[in-house]
Amino acid sequence: MEHDGKGIKVTVIGGGSSYTPELVDGILRRKDTLPVRELWLLDIPEGEKKLSVIAAFAGRMAKKAGSGIRIYPSLDRRAALEGADFVLSQFRVGGLAGRARDEAIPLKYGIIGQETTGPGGYAYALRTLPVIFDICRDIEELSPRAWLINFTNPAGIITEGILNYTGVRAIGLCNGPITTKRAIAALLEVEPQRINAEFVGLNHMSFVRDVTLDGKSIINDLIDLYEKAEGEAREKLKLVSDVLWDPWFIRSLGMLTNFYHRYYFKCRAMLKEQEENYRQNGSRALVVQEIERKLFELYADKSVDEKPAELEQRGGAYYSEAAVALIDAIYNDRNEIHTVNVLNRGTISDLPYNAVIETNALIGAAGASPLVIGKMPEKVAGLIGYVKTYEQLAVKAAVNRSYDDALAAMISNPFVNDYETAKTMMDEFIAAHKPLLDYLAKSPGRIPRRIET
Amino acid sequence: MEHDGKGIKVTVIGGGSSYTPELVDGILRRKDTLPVRELWLLDIPEGEKKLSVIAAFAGRMAKKAGSGIRIYPSLDRRAALEGADFVLSQFRVGGLAGRARDEAIPLKYGIIGQETTGPGGYAYALRTLPVIFDICRDIEELSPRAWLINFTNPAGIITEGILNYTGVRAIGLCNGPITTKRAIAALLEVEPQRINAEFVGLNHMSFVRDVTLDGKSIINDLIDLYEKAEGEAREKLKLVSDVLWDPWFIRSLGMLTNFYHRYYFKCRAMLKEQEENYRQNGSRALVVQEIERKLFELYADKSVDEKPAELEQRGGAYYSEAAVALIDAIYNDRNEIHTVNVLNRGTISDLPYNAVIETNALIGAAGASPLVIGKMPEKVAGLIGYVKTYEQLAVKAAVNRSYDDALAAMISNPFVNDYETAKTMMDEFIAAHKPLLDYLAKSPGRIPRRIET
Amino acid sequence: MEHDGKGIKVTVIGGGSSYTPELVDGILRRKDTLPVRELWLLDIPEGEKKLSVIAAFAGRMAKKAGSGIRIYPSLDRRAALEGADFVLSQFRVGGLAGRARDEAIPLKYGIIGQETTGPGGYAYALRTLPVIFDICRDIEELSPRAWLINFTNPAGIITEGILNYTGVRAIGLCNGPITTKRAIAALLEVEPQRINAEFVGLNHMSFVRDVTLDGKSIINDLIDLYEKAEGEAREKLKLVSDVLWDPWFIRSLGMLTNFYHRYYFKCRAMLKEQEENYRQNGSRALVVQEIERKLFELYADKSVDEKPAELEQRGGAYYSEAAVALIDAIYNDRNEIHTVNVLNRGTISDLPYNAVIETNALIGAAGASPLVIGKMPEKVAGLIGYVKTYEQLAVKAAVNRSYDDALAAMISNPFVNDYETAKTMMDEFIAAHKPLLDYLAKSPGRIPRRIET
Amino acid sequence: MEHDGKGIKVTVIGGGSSYTPELVDGILRRKDTLPVRELWLLDIPEGEKKLSVIAAFAGRMAKKAGSGIRIYPSLDRRAALEGADFVLSQFRVGGLAGRARDEAIPLKYGIIGQETTGPGGYAYALRTLPVIFDICRDIEELSPRAWLINFTNPAGIITEGILNYTGVRAIGLCNGPITTKRAIAALLEVEPQRINAEFVGLNHMSFVRDVTLDGKSIINDLIDLYEKAEGEAREKLKLVSDVLWDPWFIRSLGMLTNFYHRYYFKCRAMLKEQEENYRQNGSRALVVQEIERKLFELYADKSVDEKPAELEQRGGAYYSEAAVALIDAIYNDRNEIHTVNVLNRGTISDLPYNAVIETNALIGAAGASPLVIGKMPEKVAGLIGYVKTYEQLAVKAAVNRSYDDALAAMISNPFVNDYETAKTMMDEFIAAHKPLLDYLAKSPGRIPRRIET
Repeated sequence: MEHDGKGIKVTVIGGGSSYTPELVDGILRRKDTLPVRELWLLDIPEGEKKLSVIAAFAGRMAKKAGSGIRIYPSLDRRAALEGADFVLSQFRVGGLAGRARDEAIPLKYGIIGQETTGPGGYAYALRTLPVIFDICRDIEELSPRAWLINFTNPAGIITEGILNYTGVRAIGLCNGPITTKRAIAALLEVEPQRINAEFVGLNHMSFVRDVTLDGKSIINDLIDLYEKAEGEAREKLKLVSDVLWDPWFIRSLGMLTNFYHRYYFKCRAMLKEQEENYRQNGSRALVVQEIERKLFELYADKSVDEKPAELEQRGGAYYSEAAVALIDAIYNDRNEIHTVNVLNRGTISDLPYNAVIETNALIGAAGASPLVIGKMPEKVAGLIGYVKTYEQLAVKAAVNRSYDDALAAMISNPFVNDYETAKTMMDEFIAAHKPLLDYLAKSPGRIPRRIET
Repeated sequence: MEHDGKGIKVTVIGGGSSYTPELVDGILRRKDTLPVRELWLLDIPEGEKKLSVIAAFAGRMAKKAGSGIRIYPSLDRRAALEGADFVLSQFRVGGLAGRARDEAIPLKYGIIGQETTGPGGYAYALRTLPVIFDICRDIEELSPRAWLINFTNPAGIITEGILNYTGVRAIGLCNGPITTKRAIAALLEVEPQRINAEFVGLNHMSFVRDVTLDGKSIINDLIDLYEKAEGEAREKLKLVSDVLWDPWFIRSLGMLTNFYHRYYFKCRAMLKEQEENYRQNGSRALVVQEIERKLFELYADKSVDEKPAELEQRGGAYYSEAAVALIDAIYNDRNEIHTVNVLNRGTISDLPYNAVIETNALIGAAGASPLVIGKMPEKVAGLIGYVKTYEQLAVKAAVNRSYDDALAAMISNPFVNDYETAKTMMDEFIAAHKPLLDYLAKSPGRIPRRIET
Repeated sequence: MEHDGKGIKVTVIGGGSSYTPELVDGILRRKDTLPVRELWLLDIPEGEKKLSVIAAFAGRMAKKAGSGIRIYPSLDRRAALEGADFVLSQFRVGGLAGRARDEAIPLKYGIIGQETTGPGGYAYALRTLPVIFDICRDIEELSPRAWLINFTNPAGIITEGILNYTGVRAIGLCNGPITTKRAIAALLEVEPQRINAEFVGLNHMSFVRDVTLDGKSIINDLIDLYEKAEGEAREKLKLVSDVLWDPWFIRSLGMLTNFYHRYYFKCRAMLKEQEENYRQNGSRALVVQEIERKLFELYADKSVDEKPAELEQRGGAYYSEAAVALIDAIYNDRNEIHTVNVLNRGTISDLPYNAVIETNALIGAAGASPLVIGKMPEKVAGLIGYVKTYEQLAVKAAVNRSYDDALAAMISNPFVNDYETAKTMMDEFIAAHKPLLDYLAKSPGRIPRRIET
Repeated sequence: MEHDGKGIKVTVIGGGSSYTPELVDGILRRKDTLPVRELWLLDIPEGEKKLSVIAAFAGRMAKKAGSGIRIYPSLDRRAALEGADFVLSQFRVGGLAGRARDEAIPLKYGIIGQETTGPGGYAYALRTLPVIFDICRDIEELSPRAWLINFTNPAGIITEGILNYTGVRAIGLCNGPITTKRAIAALLEVEPQRINAEFVGLNHMSFVRDVTLDGKSIINDLIDLYEKAEGEAREKLKLVSDVLWDPWFIRSLGMLTNFYHRYYFKCRAMLKEQEENYRQNGSRALVVQEIERKLFELYADKSVDEKPAELEQRGGAYYSEAAVALIDAIYNDRNEIHTVNVLNRGTISDLPYNAVIETNALIGAAGASPLVIGKMPEKVAGLIGYVKTYEQLAVKAAVNRSYDDALAAMISNPFVNDYETAKTMMDEFIAAHKPLLDYLAKSPGRIPRRIET
């Protein structure tokens, strides 16, 4: 990108999040190569109090780091976006209370209740898409050259929407791939930069087809570990995919998985675990709320001027690292490999041209150039294609603001195999998230019938 | 095809089936245009007694019809196939006892137990593929110009195997599409030939994208009937897809379904119904066994020389009509539209080129020329693609004779979402169908790891 | 299509053409199955005199045939199109004088000068596309359910434009395929309806991949004739492709060609022949003008009330037959195979989805359902793809009204391999066809640079 | 790749070439990072004398550079290939005498006579493919982990053959792309490493879709220079594509060209120039022979121990740099962008999956990972596709050893538009290159007819 010598304006949408100090820390650590001049922390009025806590804490962190960066807490979206060089999207429409409902409702019907996959993730996407479209209209007008780095979940669907229905330059990002690579490095006790991994698929649905150590393939050695690893190594192996698969499964697959595949391949145990947890603790959202409450107590403590260790319990490890490294790679035209969510354009030859996929790409001043993957591994091609169709239907439902389309996407969600249950959940989500999903309830009587071809 | 003036040799594999009289009836009814000279009824030694009953009955039918057709019951596959013009495959590897196990085992794990779809259908495919490959080797050698009309289920998978791994000219056939068209004609009280329907998808996974009456589209009128039809019309409407969907579902879909979609979209009710039936009557296979026992009593009665009405209870309505009409269209180069299972070759542009699909095709002396469909309707594209991948993995498992591949296909079956349950069922099927699936159990220790791309 | 019992309104654009009596003859011969009520002959003011001759002659023909069809000569496009059931497009923008220029200009530069292919055909397309787009706007408004049967050349490009940039239901038609089939029937001395031929490619760029007699493939026998045929049979063989290829060429190709392949594969001899003819007789257009003059003398003769034999010299044999048979097949939902120009939609899997191709299709009330072709024969795939790209660029130039795009298409024409000559010809065409191509000359200074991807 | 600590064995096929000192120079300059232990210079007996001159000179160069590399001149292919880490293919089947014939024969028929494109390049490919297939059999056996870097021309076709019909790991390389980038850097007077360029297409048929300086797109600025550059800048601009296009052409194209596009877009002037040159100096091959004679005089001079400046006149600038940098990037897992010829696998979504294309790729220990291109720019898509089909037919002709297939490829060459001329040239090449093309002349009488689909 063009460097005008004035430094960079970064805008964080959802700036009052408990994650923000992580991000601030990342920016401060790169201050020698990444001259951030202004950091705008944008939030909504409901979040004003948290925002002021975060902004004050960020100010202390900057001071401690000896940085001249200016922090702007703001409730004014247009001011925050105007002239931004990078926009980071990390907001959560409906908040943790909304998440709690997303997690709880499917469980009532014996279906995985999860923040980003399954019906819960779908409801979250439906709340978020109209908001991100509005934001993108502003970016198109006020900072058309900005790069939007999207972390907002479900990141695959949201980025699918942005890249197909707006003119904004965007890259979707997840901390999953970097976490997996770090876990492999930790397992092998080598420096993280010596490890590379090839991801094939979609956000929260990507498989690791190969892993290299210093450029040499070690995927088979890793697969062997599922049989051989013992003791501490076994614990570390579990961190790679967050599940310790049976060796025969991982061998038959011939690939590593990501953190969400347990909901697809180990559905029964996961459902049982969720039900058990829910009975004991309520939804995961409630647990997170408690962690957040404690974090904000820390943030508000004026003696604290560094990222607290407790932040790591929050989840989202390496979130800041992934985002700031990506910004750095673009700003400084580094041509580094990052794992990102971008338009397919043939990268995976058996997914639609315009689908958003999660893939390794070379990141430089011109954005992301994906590295070609070719055809998907046959054993997972069907599932990946199925999930992608669901995601595209989800986006279309939000674009068309159509109840019927929303229902069609719900029925196409891989966790749902029953149209009556789909409708029941759909109606329940619309009621539970009032008024955020009203745009679907109010969908006109027009009932599309014959499908166009 | 070439007419040598000597008449046609038709060979029925599984000739001792209770269906055969239906087929004989169909052939006899077309005797003026379809000069069948020899009808070979081939079966295995275990079926010899049934075969002799059927052959004798078929002889009486032919005599009654005044036909000179010669009936050859045979246990000699090579003799039966040599020089055949048409080979009809309707055999069932493992018989109804095998089917009973296919239906029962999944139910133990809370999964749909069904003869052609789900894990049950998969086990059936794994038993059948090695046998059909053997038969095809014989056809390649002994009757290379023959047309193989495959009814053996799961017809989609079996035809996928034949057309991709043998050199036999084959067309897969199902009585589903013709039954749906007849049901629509009955519903509208019009002659069946005035109705046409466009099927999109796979065997037991095809949707009706359009229906015409005298060439005019009436799909929207049919969809409206889900709301409006009452009384007897309502009963008739149910026969179209064998399920009376909620109007909102069928409207949102914009298409009609086939008889197996209830297992995908109405899974909970179907599972409950299966469990209930199983508790009361055992599996559907047992019910069919009883029907068959009675049929064979009738067939054995030397005073009976016409197809008995009871045959219709057996299921498989219009089976004979579909098969004999297809043979007639090829033999007489009729260029008629039939719904068949053939290689895709671009017919559905978003399925693999070599996939076997169920589609309308023009049938003439050169075989089947599919009518172009274009892209699949988005709402069902994901599911269809998912099922097709499973089917291709199933065929590959049989071709590779590999336990690992067999497991991968089982995990990819849309009814299975749990790898541990998949393995348990896989092992149980192998044990239950001994020795028919031993070729998988004996699969070498060689464990494929890195997936080739 | 829906039959309202009132009979059919057919509108002929370019009704004053010398071809029209052929068409009237065809309609009258089908009067028992095709109840044409009104035949509107539309033309432009410059053609008024010819139009009145044709209309009067058509009236005498109808009277002689005992038909009650009403003939409406008209200069009022909107009146002629309003409520039409079928619109036949056979007009020629710029007339024969324009054609003469199309044929002469390329010859100046040593390039094939031809009415429909090469730079001449391109100039013709550029004159025609804006006019057909205007007509289509009227059809969209005044007769949205009409079928537009397009004969206007270059039919491939014009139909490409209509089907991709308007909402009109259209089918492109050429007399080439039917002529080839008739020639094969004549060669073999069999009834034409016993012959079928599979055409693969584009209008004026389609190859005959197979020919059947009574459903049996005879392509190899036909290829053998290039070696064996003698005397009269040799003359008849020549009529199949209008060129008697060397046997080794047709064997290596393994297919038959159409009438325009001589300009691609036998370019040197054709150029020489064109140059020689031009020296002696001027362009082909001038020869046709003289034939037309004589035809109109005949048409004006009030004693003539039947299609005169001289019409056959005009070229365009079977034009009427192809068009009227197509209308009949649609109107009466005949489900017959015709060779037509329609959207690809996967019919040829290695051409773009939206490309217009020339292919066999089943024609019925719903229009054309192409029969799947699969991948193109490798030996001609490159050339066909190259021509299709040129055609798409040609349409785009007319849509964008852009001089630069027009130049890009000219450079991409397979007969042009020199960008300077391309520009010289482009400018000469614009000047020669004033004011019909002014829309390109007036293209704004805006120069597109970086090609979008 | 694995580093065994023993250093690298590099084998140069055609080691007696006048280019070799350039290569040796490149290897010596990287000696700190690229530990080449053995350099085998392989040649055929006819080249033994030249080989000994080169080997001796290479030895002096190594000594001067203080390198311990061992030089092995060899006529024993198996010894030279055994255990090689990198194999460089730079041999020329038929030598410069063969090239002279390739250049002269087409000119007799008014067709571009060129070493790598057109009929001349085709004859060269037909001579080379059987030899490279033989070499690859040896590599498969003797050094299966070796990387074959192919420079042998026509590099696109040869690499197409290697990657589709052998199991060798190969990358095709051309000095064109690096030369263009260097010329742009020289034009802008910046360091070469600040320039990047995106190449789209095939070897000798790739277009430059974008150029960046420090990551910022400057393609439009470069296009503007075609109008604005004057004096010395104008001379430097010419070096970018070796032709100074009219500004309107390059603007309409919106891309830069490579050195061979003049034969496609400026064919008339090039043909005239070739004819003129041929009249005056004989073919380019003869000029090169004279340059080579002088070079070998220098190489034989025992006082010379450094690459002589005269080598640059030979053409092939940056050849050594491209090759050695590529080897370095693989050996040291550098993940650098190089422009290489590799399997498409979806990189260009509208070319066949298995086609070899010329593209930017990330080069590391695992070889080449192409950067996704997406659809080709429409204005050149047809031409690129046409050339690729010709290339695939060319390879198939050599694989099938079929005269008919060879003829089909010749007819499909974009410079040939006349089947009779194609055959005349084909036969003349076979006679002129005796016995190298005898394998086509001796092709059996078997004439393939119906094209398989």
